[in-house]
Amino acid sequence: MKTIAYGVANATSPVARMMIERRDTQPNDVAIDILYCGICHSDIHQARNEWGGHSLYPMVPGHEIVGRVSQVGEAVTQFKVGQLVGVGCMVDACRHCEACAAGEEQYCNDSVFTYNAKDPKHGGLTFGGYAERITVDAQFVLNVPEHLDTQAVAPLLCAGITLYSPLKHWQVQAGQKVGIIGLGGLGHMGIKLAAAMGAHVVMITTSTSKAADAQRLGASEVLISTDVEAMAKHASSFDLIIDTIPVAHDLNPYIGLLKRDKTIVLVGPLDPVQVHGGNLITQRKQVAGSLIGGIAETQEMLDFCGKHNIVSDVEVIQANAINEAYTRMLKNDVKYRFVIDIASLKAQP
Amino acid sequence: MKTIAYGVANATSPVARMMIERRDTQPNDVAIDILYCGICHSDIHQARNEWGGHSLYPMVPGHEIVGRVSQVGEAVTQFKVGQLVGVGCMVDACRHCEACAAGEEQYCNDSVFTYNAKDPKHGGLTFGGYAERITVDAQFVLNVPEHLDTQAVAPLLCAGITLYSPLKHWQVQAGQKVGIIGLGGLGHMGIKLAAAMGAHVVMITTSTSKAADAQRLGASEVLISTDVEAMAKHASSFDLIIDTIPVAHDLNPYIGLLKRDKTIVLVGPLDPVQVHGGNLITQRKQVAGSLIGGIAETQEMLDFCGKHNIVSDVEVIQANAINEAYTRMLKNDVKYRFVIDIASLKAQP
Repeated sequence: MKTIAYGVANATSPVARMMIERRDTQPNDVAIDILYCGICHSDIHQARNEWGGHSLYPMVPGHEIVGRVSQVGEAVTQFKVGQLVGVGCMVDACRHCEACAAGEEQYCNDSVFTYNAKDPKHGGLTFGGYAERITVDAQFVLNVPEHLDTQAVAPLLCAGITLYSPLKHWQVQAGQKVGIIGLGGLGHMGIKLAAAMGAHVVMITTSTSKAADAQRLGASEVLISTDVEAMAKHASSFDLIIDTIPVAHDLNPYIGLLKRDKTIVLVGPLDPVQVHGGNLITQRKQVAGSLIGGIAETQEMLDFCGKHNIVSDVEVIQANAINEAYTRMLKNDVKYRFVIDIASLKAQP
Repeated sequence: MKTIAYGVANATSPVARMMIERRDTQPNDVAIDILYCGICHSDIHQARNEWGGHSLYPMVPGHEIVGRVSQVGEAVTQFKVGQLVGVGCMVDACRHCEACAAGEEQYCNDSVFTYNAKDPKHGGLTFGGYAERITVDAQFVLNVPEHLDTQAVAPLLCAGITLYSPLKHWQVQAGQKVGIIGLGGLGHMGIKLAAAMGAHVVMITTSTSKAADAQRLGASEVLISTDVEAMAKHASSFDLIIDTIPVAHDLNPYIGLLKRDKTIVLVGPLDPVQVHGGNLITQRKQVAGSLIGGIAETQEMLDFCGKHNIVSDVEVIQANAINEAYTRMLKNDVKYRFVIDIASLKAQP
């Protein structure tokens, strides 16, 4: 089948229509004809081998996958041919460790990522959603509500669950004040999800230009983090803050916004953040991290989005526009997630 | 009455036997003849005006106070003349905010520190325990078990509660693995208290020379944090870590020691600490701060210490040795807390 694949390390363009075959459908497998695949920032880092040499080639990126079931293995009862389904960041895990038992497969030490990973059961590498088809164990396939805009569902499988999981884990309640730092692919999902949970959502950003859009997405207020007076006015008033900024930055001004005993959760920053111990001690505040979400929780998130009619704001691109999309993402020039129309890959000569 | 007082900013020695009078005993007050007062590291910073100019003079330091009741106000029913009592870091709070209502007066924005604070009810400044007497509202006086070594009880009022509160807040259970970073006034109390709670206590230190003493205090193991192999062996195995290091340092190696969903609590670091976002995200770990403890919790801690026969390891000094004690503390040359014998202050000419 055709894929958008990166053949070697440090390539800036994919190998056009590289042919990679999926495994045969095993008894517990679901074979999926992919309709759309979202583009996550981590796709760029991995395609370009920017994470400490951990990239495996050839690589087919993509872990925000929506498609229709084309075939099911003989042991699969929960999915039917033709059903709309999704696949997120994982396609397997050990299934018996403490994290797996708790439904937190994302924290399993042996979880298998959807691409750029070795496949311990079937051999070889895993290949992601920039492709015509994918075959995945049924335990890691999600049911997608039919009534949502299918192309805009794809980013829920990573960006959506990455924000939903901490909102649930830190038990956001209606009426609570929730801050979302950074308005991008992750941040815009945070606004929509927290608002649907009934929270008073405050978009925290350095860009006054983002205020109108944040309110359109559901934010009750916009707080410009460089405005010292505004920051002082909001001091010690937040029940939860989720930080989606992907680069190194100073957490201290945001810690000041939290109430006693409350938490700022990092979902974006993989780089160092600055924390002043005294700012945590004086009101027993916390800095935490959170990684995507478990499979059951991802299904819960999709059902929640179905109920509240939540999808991502997307810009759908053709398969041959992938390089341009990567370039624009690095300039934050997308509102708010690119999605590849896989039909355009099939149609390529 | 005689005190050990600092008269002006940046003085390196106290004003010998400075005379400062306590207020008359009000209806809700308890007047206390002080027996012993522990020396906290924060006494040095405040006496020497090292915290951004927040020092108020004249200053009588000391918030680890043990003494006997000499007089009670007419509304006081819970204390009797002659009773052994303690006073910690606070002598009042607003008593109606959310923190006070939760029994967390240490997080009240209007809590009144035992010294170096303005006294909103009685006017003037508060003066601490380097003195013959103190008068405190009964709500902020603690009952001290008579059978404990009185002079070694004093440091429980600050160092003890500073470690007890996070151990309780993060719900340490028997059999859990608890790390204490840094073996000083705070750290040695952490080992004793966590061990008495039934935890498997690991002393985490850079100094191999501290191993024997840590085990004498109750640590089951000693982990040398510069030993890369030993750190790797303990990776992802701790239920809670309490960090007592008082200076800026890198938290990342310690974060790696925590299990999924677990917390490292800062009780010492007032300076910046380095945190790598990715280290928190991958297993949903947390960095928190914690400040002393509430009044009810301090009583609970004293009762716990009474039951388990826990006191601080102290070196008792005469009142005229205060300068030498400060100098030795700055070189970590004390096992593990200096306590002033207030009888020696009374006896001075």
